[in-house]
Amino acid sequence: MKILVANLGSTSFKYRLYDLEGENEQMLARGAIERIGSANSKVTFQSARGDAESVEPIANHGDAVQSCLDQLIDPELGVLEEAGDVAAIGFKAVHARNLTGVQRVNEDVLVAMEAFADVAPAHNPPYTKAMRMLAERFPNLPLVAAFETGFHRTIPEANQRYAIPEEWTTSLGVRRWGFHGASHRYIAGRMAQLLGRSDLKLISCHLGGSSSLCAIRDGKSVACSLGMSPQSGLPQNNRVGDFDLFALPVLLRETGKSLEEILDILANQSGLEGLSGAGRDLRDIEAAAKGGDAKASLSLGVYIAAVRHYLGAYLVELGGADAIVFTGGIGENSVTIRSGVCRDLDWLGVSFDPVANAGGVPERKVSAAGSRIEIWTVPTNEEIVVARQTRELLASSS
Amino acid sequence: MKILVANLGSTSFKYRLYDLEGENEQMLARGAIERIGSANSKVTFQSARGDAESVEPIANHGDAVQSCLDQLIDPELGVLEEAGDVAAIGFKAVHARNLTGVQRVNEDVLVAMEAFADVAPAHNPPYTKAMRMLAERFPNLPLVAAFETGFHRTIPEANQRYAIPEEWTTSLGVRRWGFHGASHRYIAGRMAQLLGRSDLKLISCHLGGSSSLCAIRDGKSVACSLGMSPQSGLPQNNRVGDFDLFALPVLLRETGKSLEEILDILANQSGLEGLSGAGRDLRDIEAAAKGGDAKASLSLGVYIAAVRHYLGAYLVELGGADAIVFTGGIGENSVTIRSGVCRDLDWLGVSFDPVANAGGVPERKVSAAGSRIEIWTVPTNEEIVVARQTRELLASSS
Repeated sequence: MKILVANLGSTSFKYRLYDLEGENEQMLARGAIERIGSANSKVTFQSARGDAESVEPIANHGDAVQSCLDQLIDPELGVLEEAGDVAAIGFKAVHARNLTGVQRVNEDVLVAMEAFADVAPAHNPPYTKAMRMLAERFPNLPLVAAFETGFHRTIPEANQRYAIPEEWTTSLGVRRWGFHGASHRYIAGRMAQLLGRSDLKLISCHLGGSSSLCAIRDGKSVACSLGMSPQSGLPQNNRVGDFDLFALPVLLRETGKSLEEILDILANQSGLEGLSGAGRDLRDIEAAAKGGDAKASLSLGVYIAAVRHYLGAYLVELGGADAIVFTGGIGENSVTIRSGVCRDLDWLGVSFDPVANAGGVPERKVSAAGSRIEIWTVPTNEEIVVARQTRELLASSS
Repeated sequence: MKILVANLGSTSFKYRLYDLEGENEQMLARGAIERIGSANSKVTFQSARGDAESVEPIANHGDAVQSCLDQLIDPELGVLEEAGDVAAIGFKAVHARNLTGVQRVNEDVLVAMEAFADVAPAHNPPYTKAMRMLAERFPNLPLVAAFETGFHRTIPEANQRYAIPEEWTTSLGVRRWGFHGASHRYIAGRMAQLLGRSDLKLISCHLGGSSSLCAIRDGKSVACSLGMSPQSGLPQNNRVGDFDLFALPVLLRETGKSLEEILDILANQSGLEGLSGAGRDLRDIEAAAKGGDAKASLSLGVYIAAVRHYLGAYLVELGGADAIVFTGGIGENSVTIRSGVCRDLDWLGVSFDPVANAGGVPERKVSAAGSRIEIWTVPTNEEIVVARQTRELLASSS
């Protein structure tokens, strides 16, 4: 079964085409359309038959998917006989009101996602806009939303609840939902393969443009640093992370801004970017810190302190750990961040292998031989998770 | 030097009179005036010379202090020759804009406290109202505010910062201030006495009507679960604790309430009371849970999970701990909560002495002999801390 997995940005469409048959999982092609809406959109494509790159006008996400399908059946580089071979498009969707898991995209799902547009302002609006367009333009192509909250449905109630009036949780859906479910689910499964057993206590550290930690017991999420919204938990690239609501009266009074404006700043001009003033990409902030920029150094310190905060919380939650796993762009690649997060853990019997931590194949153990808790870097693969979930939904509903 | 330490509620005035001379610290008397503003205020007094109790009309906090001073010079039970022997009244003040430490109460201090009235809505308004009245009525009696944030000025910048635009922190004072400073300071000093050394790593768990954890290294606070406001951190009796600001759009839209109304509910009808529906006193909630009340059980679970969250975070922050110390009404008295918080810590080599944990003198070690981290219950004494700080300020400014 051929599944197209889509990763949507407001002006981008990235995809991978998977062929899933039983245990056999193969990526047939991948590609991206960037700068959608401009006269100079960038179109890239890769398959076993070769690569292609072009610049052409792509007006919207509907045209982007058409361009993708054209490429997939291209006589020279394509991998499909006809566009109809694509069984579904799977989306890593973020958040919806009173809805999670894996869902066939229909009007109810779209309305539920739109209802939480202001809870996930960077994520939901581009998704619902593109999904509506695709549903209209490709009515016979099933669209499937695999929600990032789905993996966290196993979090015990005591870890989900805020101390608010009960009806706000049960009726309005105000709870710690957790996100990055596809990535943490992948890490749970991959670590079970790597360590050869499934009764594992894992702390999955997805550190990237957006970041979260997840405590995993026996393959199931039991806590996640992300709460009601993708703006909570660790400081994100430009989103605030954990914050105290009762700063609001001060911010409203002293800045003269409206609540909407304050929320917009917290969702778009805060996080590492707001703190550092050195951009939102951690690599730029690391470079600035190395160059002596005090604000950039402080930002790294705040970020590492936040990761260590949740790391400690999850060690107690799980009663120790078999492995701490770093994934995501920062987690896989930044020796500085990994070393900072795991500094002074010798009291727990945890130590790095400095050579392995400095470099090697992307998927590797970076802890020393005698370390009581193993430390790993594992490249995540959210797309394969979404492809599998999409296939399962199609299989169960056919 | 005789210092009167006041604990103010909106309709109560509790006090202790200390005589501090060098190492010699003596409590001479204590008392309370409750139901201030009613025709039947309850006045109680205790000294070495005896106890008194009466019911009489006390119109306001000025009359309450006058009643207190009258009692202190009472020929039969009093302990002072004249009211002028009281060198100052020390207050455990909570929060002020860009102000912390120990301050002689003057117009600047009062204005700074009033500026944060909505950040600490349960605490600041009754204090500033009473202080203004007392300053007018007893112009020759120095009033001293020992701010709860003072002990936390040693928290490293990386642990203080929210990931918000820098000027919101530096100009507007939006940062993790930390509270319960008098209690955590007392625990830091007392544990150094009890363990005979000051280079200690301590996790002070102040669990009571309001609750916080503090990580203490070498006698200094390095992290506190309370952030910008007393509504953050652990779930409080009727205050929310940690929450996600981005639930606000949902709450505003779905409840039809104003921002002020939502904040009021989060500050007054949330926390353990909002969750449990069984009142705000943990003893009542424990009783309801024992009686099979599922919501009460869940509330205890949420509370314990939150304490364990910060406990783990602070173990990593400190790189282990010499002792975990329980104080406050719940921390000192609830075996259930202590056992719940410290459950499944055997992977850390931590274990209770079940007999000692079940009961004994209030100040005692409750961990087993071989426990790698000691566990203690220590009754806090915030008043003696405020008395000492008040004396120091008077001495340094005289």
